[in-house]
Amino acid sequence: MVRATLGELAVQFGCTLRGSPDVIVTHVATLESADSSALSFLANPKYKAHLASTRVAAVVLDSASADECPVAALIAKQPYVTYARIAAVLHPPPLPAAGIHTSAVVSPSAVIDNTADIGAGVIIGEQVHIAENVVIGPGCVIGDHVTIGRDTRVLPNVTMLSGTVIGTRCLINSGAVLGSEGFGFAPSAEGWVKVPQTGRVIVGDDVEIGANTTIDRGAIGDTVIGNDVKLDNQIQIAHNVHIGDHTAIAACTGISGSTTIGKHCMIAGQVGIAGHLSICDNVVVTGKTMVSTSIRKPGIYSGSLHAEEARAFRRNAARFAQLDELAKLVKRTGKKTGDTTEES
Amino acid sequence: MVRATLGELAVQFGCTLRGSPDVIVTHVATLESADSSALSFLANPKYKAHLASTRVAAVVLDSASADECPVAALIAKQPYVTYARIAAVLHPPPLPAAGIHTSAVVSPSAVIDNTADIGAGVIIGEQVHIAENVVIGPGCVIGDHVTIGRDTRVLPNVTMLSGTVIGTRCLINSGAVLGSEGFGFAPSAEGWVKVPQTGRVIVGDDVEIGANTTIDRGAIGDTVIGNDVKLDNQIQIAHNVHIGDHTAIAACTGISGSTTIGKHCMIAGQVGIAGHLSICDNVVVTGKTMVSTSIRKPGIYSGSLHAEEARAFRRNAARFAQLDELAKLVKRTGKKTGDTTEES
Amino acid sequence: MVRATLGELAVQFGCTLRGSPDVIVTHVATLESADSSALSFLANPKYKAHLASTRVAAVVLDSASADECPVAALIAKQPYVTYARIAAVLHPPPLPAAGIHTSAVVSPSAVIDNTADIGAGVIIGEQVHIAENVVIGPGCVIGDHVTIGRDTRVLPNVTMLSGTVIGTRCLINSGAVLGSEGFGFAPSAEGWVKVPQTGRVIVGDDVEIGANTTIDRGAIGDTVIGNDVKLDNQIQIAHNVHIGDHTAIAACTGISGSTTIGKHCMIAGQVGIAGHLSICDNVVVTGKTMVSTSIRKPGIYSGSLHAEEARAFRRNAARFAQLDELAKLVKRTGKKTGDTTEES
Repeated sequence: MVRATLGELAVQFGCTLRGSPDVIVTHVATLESADSSALSFLANPKYKAHLASTRVAAVVLDSASADECPVAALIAKQPYVTYARIAAVLHPPPLPAAGIHTSAVVSPSAVIDNTADIGAGVIIGEQVHIAENVVIGPGCVIGDHVTIGRDTRVLPNVTMLSGTVIGTRCLINSGAVLGSEGFGFAPSAEGWVKVPQTGRVIVGDDVEIGANTTIDRGAIGDTVIGNDVKLDNQIQIAHNVHIGDHTAIAACTGISGSTTIGKHCMIAGQVGIAGHLSICDNVVVTGKTMVSTSIRKPGIYSGSLHAEEARAFRRNAARFAQLDELAKLVKRTGKKTGDTTEES
Repeated sequence: MVRATLGELAVQFGCTLRGSPDVIVTHVATLESADSSALSFLANPKYKAHLASTRVAAVVLDSASADECPVAALIAKQPYVTYARIAAVLHPPPLPAAGIHTSAVVSPSAVIDNTADIGAGVIIGEQVHIAENVVIGPGCVIGDHVTIGRDTRVLPNVTMLSGTVIGTRCLINSGAVLGSEGFGFAPSAEGWVKVPQTGRVIVGDDVEIGANTTIDRGAIGDTVIGNDVKLDNQIQIAHNVHIGDHTAIAACTGISGSTTIGKHCMIAGQVGIAGHLSICDNVVVTGKTMVSTSIRKPGIYSGSLHAEEARAFRRNAARFAQLDELAKLVKRTGKKTGDTTEES
Repeated sequence: MVRATLGELAVQFGCTLRGSPDVIVTHVATLESADSSALSFLANPKYKAHLASTRVAAVVLDSASADECPVAALIAKQPYVTYARIAAVLHPPPLPAAGIHTSAVVSPSAVIDNTADIGAGVIIGEQVHIAENVVIGPGCVIGDHVTIGRDTRVLPNVTMLSGTVIGTRCLINSGAVLGSEGFGFAPSAEGWVKVPQTGRVIVGDDVEIGANTTIDRGAIGDTVIGNDVKLDNQIQIAHNVHIGDHTAIAACTGISGSTTIGKHCMIAGQVGIAGHLSICDNVVVTGKTMVSTSIRKPGIYSGSLHAEEARAFRRNAARFAQLDELAKLVKRTGKKTGDTTEES
């Protein structure tokens, strides 16, 4: 267990401390907690109501909220970032035990740094390179010619197919598949003809890949995930997609083949992006939106209706099916009364 | 193979039997089957047309349909429930072979009941507790400090990360990942700062979790799945979600972080539920709906348009993009002619 | 490395060669490549702009584009099919090493052809039949009574539950789960009653199944995937679905229980198809569409709105929620001015 005083944390993370520097915190908890050795934070105004009654040891928050804090306060300009950094100190990832588990099956041609931790039942193919401090969790299959950069953690039961390249400090969650066959078939009179998928998956540094996310290898050339890209669970990334640095994508989103996504984009959950598109930098796409054309201008894009009471929704949806006809009627009538839309 | 007479089944399950009590059934089949030792059922009126021509040994159905049944009838008030219970007698799950397969890798500190069945290639971490009659299928990885209650079956290649708690009589399908890292990052000038995910996944009793479904551990505090919750395949449940007892969720649905779903809800497939929401008890959400605000009233909620012939749909969708303008025109014209909506 | 001359390829694949028959190609590359031993292709007019500047050895294209090709041209009627076939010659799948890895756990009752390649850590149950030249990648779990036809390749970490039948020349990608429990529960006063799932998964010949795709076993009777069906990643196929020959389905699509899909259909990504429906042959469904009724007529079907700039979309979506009321107003006004839709 890590122990830190508020004084130490204030100095290390540049916070203003309101309260005793000698108070010790050992872990994080929510504002609702009554745990007097816990640190909490307030970043989302939605949870401000919990501040007045909190009984944790200290709260990371901004100066605007500090007066309402009934316990010690670590005042930061960006409370969520500061909280994240302190929490990482209090909750370090488990220390890897360097070495190769006796049940792992490692090709003799694989080069594995002796600080790396290869878990039970791991299978490592030919010509694999695994760098310093890499952790490969139990049950992972690492195909031939895979390269994994230092300090990357691969959780249990991940599959990396041949040729995959992973940068440094990445985290790959369980069930993720990197380098699966892209979906490429040419129609012919005799049925589908498979188009060989000859490329690889290339992942940058500081990338996080969620549980059961799939990233196909390129058909020709590679599928490329930039630096500091964050991919949530159950995302599907097709062959030859390129994702720019610092872009974050939420769960269950699917990106079709050969689409390029810019830097610093934020794509919400269950979004679908068609193939062969180009999305520029700094684009935000809201949940469940279907993107079917390229986006050339930074901004926020939406395309999904929201839940209504079912009977009302159904009535409106029935009218949607008459919408073209209704619009024509509106315009005819409008002409008679002298009312027009700008375009009619 | 199990053999049961209709007489025995009628007594055990409280059905009225129309037909010979000595007829033997050994398995279930559809109404279309001609198998004279099979039991079938009629619950969905859509399939009533098949009743007249069925040649199975007997059919479980309600009294209203009994007269049209050409073979023996087991008449029940709730034919689907009764069928389910009889089918469970005829098709018991395979008997586990108690013991730990020699190829499994089990931490010495794990406590495994000697009636449990630990399959080939299973990897079990430190301080794991596995109770009576639990079956862990081949290839599963069970992380440190996991607890699994009695009679729970875990199918092959499931991953449970550290700290996961599973109740009794659960069924976890292959490829499911429990306890993956939640998706939490604080934006900073230097890029994304990871927010440590310090909580666990807590699953109640009688829960079924589908293939390749992912449930993230809590960020602070736990992600909680109540008793008798049924989760289909490829569902994504983010950190700190709470799901109430008896709620059932169909495939491919995604639930964002910190959302609470009540009891006895039914969420259809491909639904998306945004984060930090509260859904009350007894809510039904229809397929592919996007829920973006809390739901405080029991009822049925919808939000998805349905397939139309593409050309018609495209014309209407083009009008949708003019809808605000059209509405303004309608209201202007309406005012001139003395027609108004309630709100205009 | 495979080496082929353009002359050999032109003869073998029936192309007209414009250029020297002695030029050697060894691999494929994009038109943007400057690799003088690479073969490329032009099939999508979107990429025609790259043709003029290409520096590859030769391009497969149709006669209409041949004049603009600055390098050798292999002229074909269907350039994409011809390219696919040539690429398969240049990039053959890795040769399997026949035999059973010493770390595999194989039931004594399994019958495995001695040309098959069973990878490290594979677990094979009772009464399994594996035919000639089958490759089972590392970490796969093959349940009892599974049958796999000749020349089928199963990539690492696939799970096939008991009774699954796979045809010849299939490719199953990593993380796929075949034969998981269908989602069947009867509601009762005491909670959900599980309906035993007694059927199997039956897969035809020449089928490709994507990474992390899940196919449930039938509840009664089987779930059936026809010949030459192509399933992309993260598709969910529920119990008792039948998919007709030559149908292709893109990623993240979900098909609910007991639905039948015809032959030669093309279903795009993130489509949802409700249960107990029938979709006829030659149906195309565009991305993210919700299909909630049977489709009896070949054609293209759509149901998804597309991304707009968020503010505009939100305004229109707000009007959608008033649509029924607006439509009534339009029709009232229209009557006064003598304007009507066909149906009003």
